[in-house]
Amino acid sequence: MKIAVAQLNYHIGNFESNANKIINSIKQAKSDGAELVVFSELALCGYPPYDLLERKEFVQNCLATLDSIAKECDTIAAIVGAPEINPAPKGKNLYNAAYFMADGQIKQIVRKTLLPNYDVFDEYRYFQPNNEFNIIEYKGKRIALTICEDIWVNQPFANAFSKDKLYTIAPMKELAKFNPDLAINIAASPFSYTQVDVRRSIVSNKAEQFNLPFIYVNQVGANTELIFDGNSKVVNSKGNIVIQSKAFDEDYFTFDSAEIEKLPAITPEETNQLALIHDALVIGIRDYFQKTGFKQATLGLSGGIDSAVTVALAVEALGSENVRVLLLPSQYSSDHSIKDAVDLAENLGIEYHIVPIKNIFNEFNTALSPIFEGLEHNLTEENIQARIRGTLLMALSNKFGPILLNTSNKSEAAVGYGTLYGDMNGGISVLGDVYKTDVFKLARYINRNGEVIPENTIVKPPSAELRPDQKDSDSLPDYDILDGILFKYIEQNQSPQEIIEAGYDEATVNKAIRLVNINEYKRFQTSPTLRVSSKAFGIGRRIPLVAKL
Amino acid sequence: MKIAVAQLNYHIGNFESNANKIINSIKQAKSDGAELVVFSELALCGYPPYDLLERKEFVQNCLATLDSIAKECDTIAAIVGAPEINPAPKGKNLYNAAYFMADGQIKQIVRKTLLPNYDVFDEYRYFQPNNEFNIIEYKGKRIALTICEDIWVNQPFANAFSKDKLYTIAPMKELAKFNPDLAINIAASPFSYTQVDVRRSIVSNKAEQFNLPFIYVNQVGANTELIFDGNSKVVNSKGNIVIQSKAFDEDYFTFDSAEIEKLPAITPEETNQLALIHDALVIGIRDYFQKTGFKQATLGLSGGIDSAVTVALAVEALGSENVRVLLLPSQYSSDHSIKDAVDLAENLGIEYHIVPIKNIFNEFNTALSPIFEGLEHNLTEENIQARIRGTLLMALSNKFGPILLNTSNKSEAAVGYGTLYGDMNGGISVLGDVYKTDVFKLARYINRNGEVIPENTIVKPPSAELRPDQKDSDSLPDYDILDGILFKYIEQNQSPQEIIEAGYDEATVNKAIRLVNINEYKRFQTSPTLRVSSKAFGIGRRIPLVAKL
Repeated sequence: MKIAVAQLNYHIGNFESNANKIINSIKQAKSDGAELVVFSELALCGYPPYDLLERKEFVQNCLATLDSIAKECDTIAAIVGAPEINPAPKGKNLYNAAYFMADGQIKQIVRKTLLPNYDVFDEYRYFQPNNEFNIIEYKGKRIALTICEDIWVNQPFANAFSKDKLYTIAPMKELAKFNPDLAINIAASPFSYTQVDVRRSIVSNKAEQFNLPFIYVNQVGANTELIFDGNSKVVNSKGNIVIQSKAFDEDYFTFDSAEIEKLPAITPEETNQLALIHDALVIGIRDYFQKTGFKQATLGLSGGIDSAVTVALAVEALGSENVRVLLLPSQYSSDHSIKDAVDLAENLGIEYHIVPIKNIFNEFNTALSPIFEGLEHNLTEENIQARIRGTLLMALSNKFGPILLNTSNKSEAAVGYGTLYGDMNGGISVLGDVYKTDVFKLARYINRNGEVIPENTIVKPPSAELRPDQKDSDSLPDYDILDGILFKYIEQNQSPQEIIEAGYDEATVNKAIRLVNINEYKRFQTSPTLRVSSKAFGIGRRIPLVAKL
Repeated sequence: MKIAVAQLNYHIGNFESNANKIINSIKQAKSDGAELVVFSELALCGYPPYDLLERKEFVQNCLATLDSIAKECDTIAAIVGAPEINPAPKGKNLYNAAYFMADGQIKQIVRKTLLPNYDVFDEYRYFQPNNEFNIIEYKGKRIALTICEDIWVNQPFANAFSKDKLYTIAPMKELAKFNPDLAINIAASPFSYTQVDVRRSIVSNKAEQFNLPFIYVNQVGANTELIFDGNSKVVNSKGNIVIQSKAFDEDYFTFDSAEIEKLPAITPEETNQLALIHDALVIGIRDYFQKTGFKQATLGLSGGIDSAVTVALAVEALGSENVRVLLLPSQYSSDHSIKDAVDLAENLGIEYHIVPIKNIFNEFNTALSPIFEGLEHNLTEENIQARIRGTLLMALSNKFGPILLNTSNKSEAAVGYGTLYGDMNGGISVLGDVYKTDVFKLARYINRNGEVIPENTIVKPPSAELRPDQKDSDSLPDYDILDGILFKYIEQNQSPQEIIEAGYDEATVNKAIRLVNINEYKRFQTSPTLRVSSKAFGIGRRIPLVAKL
């Protein structure tokens, strides 16, 4: 059986655009002589639709569009992910379903059994879990069709306390009882820099375990914070990849299922973490703008590493003509900072303006002097400078339309080393899931073919430059140490005691963790953060603000 | 059997404080001769603990504290809500459990069957649902013990599309098979101004349906956005309330279970919506400060209704000595606004300072003039004023420590009529779940015993005063109409078509809903909002930012 795989970038709620993409791929597959074309999980509505699934008109529009797609499936069959209204009188309102269409109609519906409800996933909020299994029979082939999480059984997390994936049902085992010829999994599996590897090994293991050729079809593209890398693939029954789609881009390919076992094993997808993070952030920025209907970005260049990496990524995502920046020096800015920022802007060929903030800062101090009389300048005045900058950048955004990018990195966001309503402003956080030590590596990666980010920006000691001779290391542990502690606390969910036992200094651990805990309120009010790790700040990490920790 | 009910205000993660409160009530109950004392759902860790339940040390601390509580239960039994580690090798890591303690140890554990996973609830994220039922036998009594949602079966939501509470299992029916003498439900049921009524009717109906006296024990107090009203009660087997605890305050009472049927039916709890909203917001503010360890609040008084109501509530919650405000007039502020704000501050007896923003505003305009040359003043300059005010208020907060209160109302938050990083600043949003039309009613309620909020503030047309003679009605439909549309769209999840069919003008409906949809990004970056309605912005309403709607 000739099969086509369509790895597409869907826009949540944009049924017209999604249906057009799907129908175009169906037509392509028909003209390629394919007998079946496969799309990803919840393709028609885009993933994750969140509470739009609770809106009647959203689901009805989706189902009406589905019917129009079914009509295209006359000489070909298609598998399309979309919600199904639960016909039972009780239970959750919907199923997360895969529609098998042929002969111009919906022939069979397969429902998702394992509903992820951890980290960024809340599928029990919307969906009833399936508990009945059946095979799809088509053109003499018996197809075991599953949806995303259905194959993620027995995959415990790094932190041993969690049993999140230790499900009591194993859908592939149930389907194996039907003696399938072929397995298909349709997915909306978000990217993280470790996920790509894990996911491949799961698909390979399932193919090998059940001795079945395995077709894996993932969504691609970013929807706000969640980035989908695609990386769809065909794996033979020995678990070797024989076809591999593009990462971070739409793709389409066809193959004959009878040939899978004869195709040579190929090199798997890219798993270099820096390359993955880089590519993910670029598509993350690009899709945020494209899907919200904006073209241009702005940000403030300080001469430091975070804004430098952010602007370089923005230029890759949007083009240099669509990025315009401000340099906002104060009396505490060093000459080299301005020079480094100018060099960067000129390397990138982007428009920049220099707007000194000194006079505005002085006017704030004058206005506050009756109330602050006799008190020394402290963090308050540092924050005022950051907020003046934030206000100037938002003024540019409001006047000309570019969206402000948040340049905070994950280390800063973690310990609250940033000013709320100041340098934490922005519509989307580009580096908020990238630790400072990785931001430096990313800068080197960006410079891999020649200097984009000035060398001085990379080598000088990090500083917020909000008071004379300030350095990050005045307030924070060295980033090498800090990031090690943060990774264990956040990504690995280790207890303070475990981190200390791993060899970190007790006082440093306690200070770092205390800072993480008392700064939940700042992160609560931050923009969405492009997620590249297995545990990003945002919807996937929910800590009560008033907790005593 | 003599039973004590302890309705307490728990602090999430503060095991020491929570355990002390629980142990003090156990001691009180012992000295009162009670044989059983009942605490609420997840009492020991506080509700909602969110992802702290994924932290090993959090659960271990909780369980260690539980053991110390059990030791106090020598001459008395207690029912205490706390998580239990799921002993099975697969499934979710925890149960949401009620520990029955007697003879100095844990005697029996009852697990929650129905896990709410809608609106603000994500219990499937952490807990395995129970599917085994048993009764507690103690001193010759057979007790049917359930946890919160377990009695909320067959309670469809207002919007007919949802089947969220149409569970396939009915725990009370299962327990009825054991012929209980008495039913107890321990809860952490958050307040909304409609919930109080619905909840009472559910408890009454269950008592009547199963012909059982019913003891309902709820948590009280606020944890960030979620407010718990308490309203614990004892209901006789005819469904009449015979004992009713305080609302919005800790309470403790005892009774003899043999006497329940002989006690007279009493007046149910307060259900006047304005009184409820008022009391909820006051405890919401108070607990936010108390549980984060802050004492003082600040905000900007504009002379308008939102800041007036917010400051009056803050003074009730924190005391006039703990509220200090700024008046931040610009060249567009009317004289009456300043006078109204001064009158209000003096009525309340709070410290205030007047800081004109004109000079700072001019300095911003000067700094931006090379970039904005030749362009007319527009929304950009209005936003600059709002951000100057936000920065001045945060400067006061940073210098002296008071937490800034967000004064946005729900109508504004819904349609994005507010400046991000400006007047939307603040640690907690007091009125963000109260529509503008209800803010006016709340002002009248606050003035019920004499003028606190100046009459002129209540009767003048709402204005942001960011340009000459500006009125809210220049940009927005009349609030009566707007709020009607918003309520149907947000609380009732009605489609635009349904709202139009209910008699609203089509263009107005489409405009209002478009504004709601395109302003998700602003609400995403807002502080937590004290929740008083059945659908508040925040964790209970999750809309993708990049969706095409």
